[in-house]
Amino acid sequence: MARLKAVLLDLSGVLYVGAEPLPGAQAALARLTQAGVPVRYITNTTRSTRATIHAQLVRMGFTIPEDEIFTAPQAVRRILRERGLRPYLIVHPGLAPEFADLPQADPDAVVLGDAGETFDYAVLNAAFRMLVKGAPLIAMGNNRCFREAEGLSLDVGPFVAALEYAAGVTAEVLGKPAPEFFHSAVADLGCAPDEVMMIGDDYAADVEGALKAGLQATLVRTGKYREGDEARIGVPGAWLAADIGEAVDRILAAR
Amino acid sequence: MARLKAVLLDLSGVLYVGAEPLPGAQAALARLTQAGVPVRYITNTTRSTRATIHAQLVRMGFTIPEDEIFTAPQAVRRILRERGLRPYLIVHPGLAPEFADLPQADPDAVVLGDAGETFDYAVLNAAFRMLVKGAPLIAMGNNRCFREAEGLSLDVGPFVAALEYAAGVTAEVLGKPAPEFFHSAVADLGCAPDEVMMIGDDYAADVEGALKAGLQATLVRTGKYREGDEARIGVPGAWLAADIGEAVDRILAAR
Repeated sequence: MARLKAVLLDLSGVLYVGAEPLPGAQAALARLTQAGVPVRYITNTTRSTRATIHAQLVRMGFTIPEDEIFTAPQAVRRILRERGLRPYLIVHPGLAPEFADLPQADPDAVVLGDAGETFDYAVLNAAFRMLVKGAPLIAMGNNRCFREAEGLSLDVGPFVAALEYAAGVTAEVLGKPAPEFFHSAVADLGCAPDEVMMIGDDYAADVEGALKAGLQATLVRTGKYREGDEARIGVPGAWLAADIGEAVDRILAAR
Repeated sequence: MARLKAVLLDLSGVLYVGAEPLPGAQAALARLTQAGVPVRYITNTTRSTRATIHAQLVRMGFTIPEDEIFTAPQAVRRILRERGLRPYLIVHPGLAPEFADLPQADPDAVVLGDAGETFDYAVLNAAFRMLVKGAPLIAMGNNRCFREAEGLSLDVGPFVAALEYAAGVTAEVLGKPAPEFFHSAVADLGCAPDEVMMIGDDYAADVEGALKAGLQATLVRTGKYREGDEARIGVPGAWLAADIGEAVDRILAAR
């Protein structure tokens, strides 16, 4: 195993659930800082802008620089600008400001985030008709679900699956588990992928995705974790930890 | 090829689109009757009860006995009663009467039809949470789309795909392309499957489904047919026809 030099952290379900920090999360981050381990944050959360996510973290008592947070919507935004695409945005109202300066009239690409209550039949049908005419389908992730205070809730992935099936197309997924997305954060850490440990609660997007992208990965049993998820990881090599506190202890012991 | 003895007809997209009969459809049915070819009707339409579908056909000028129409919702209804399941129904309001006498309190099975505007985030999320707890997912079909007057619209299949992906389960599909559904209509015709020609506009549910169930099958280029659909049929042997008129002519010529 390569020497661990840095850590990549998922946010929701690892540091907090809803508006509440998870027990021991702040202390775990402090131990990484004291040990001089650089950290970046990588999230498929698409219900708010990076600025809002950062403000929420600060409100929960986390000291994290905004520019160390890598978000799926920003990866999508970059691609849209590079290709000159005009998005038909199916995103949560809280995310709309992230795309406010992009042209959206006469759209030529369908962009899917975790739109929550914004997902309805009319919106999905409009997207379907664009896909049938050849518009590309760009997704901010393919996560199955996330944990809210009242239980598991559908994330963007099921709606990606619905549109892929309907139109017979394959989405371009730009958030986790896309290797390019992990690598953009790894590059910012100045490390090789196998020197970085990804910690997440999503066995597929976080853990399997990171392992396939050449990183190391730890699945924590918090957030959306469900009994037996470790057996659902499609590649070997994942670490398992009760929570971020135990994950950080194991990382520091292994260095 | 076995001798053709009988015909199985899809309804929407073959006999009519929206509330309008397709040109030549009534005449084609009359030619089958004159030639003494028995016909049954098999539909995954799940926006209305069989009685309503029948009334619409009569209004459009088709002379079809109601009990010769096999509907996916009735197949679902039969299974629910056999297994004593209490359905959480995600169906079009027009279909609700078909299930009105079944117990629906404290549901233990998710039942999915083409719910149209009834599909929204809250309803799908409630279904997802039941599936995660182990409720079976029963679908009236897995059709991708159907043609409305204003264009292609999402059918039940994409929402089946969404919930299957979200919960990591596989739906039990009771409408077309389930072989049992084709065979129930074939049995009513008193034929062997390979003596029956299925005519439909859905290359997957109608044509591939019928061929896999041992029937013969014709894809018509009306309704939801899209250019190139014939190449998407996953098994060989399908006939192709411009519409039901041409399909019937070829069947009568082949007998």
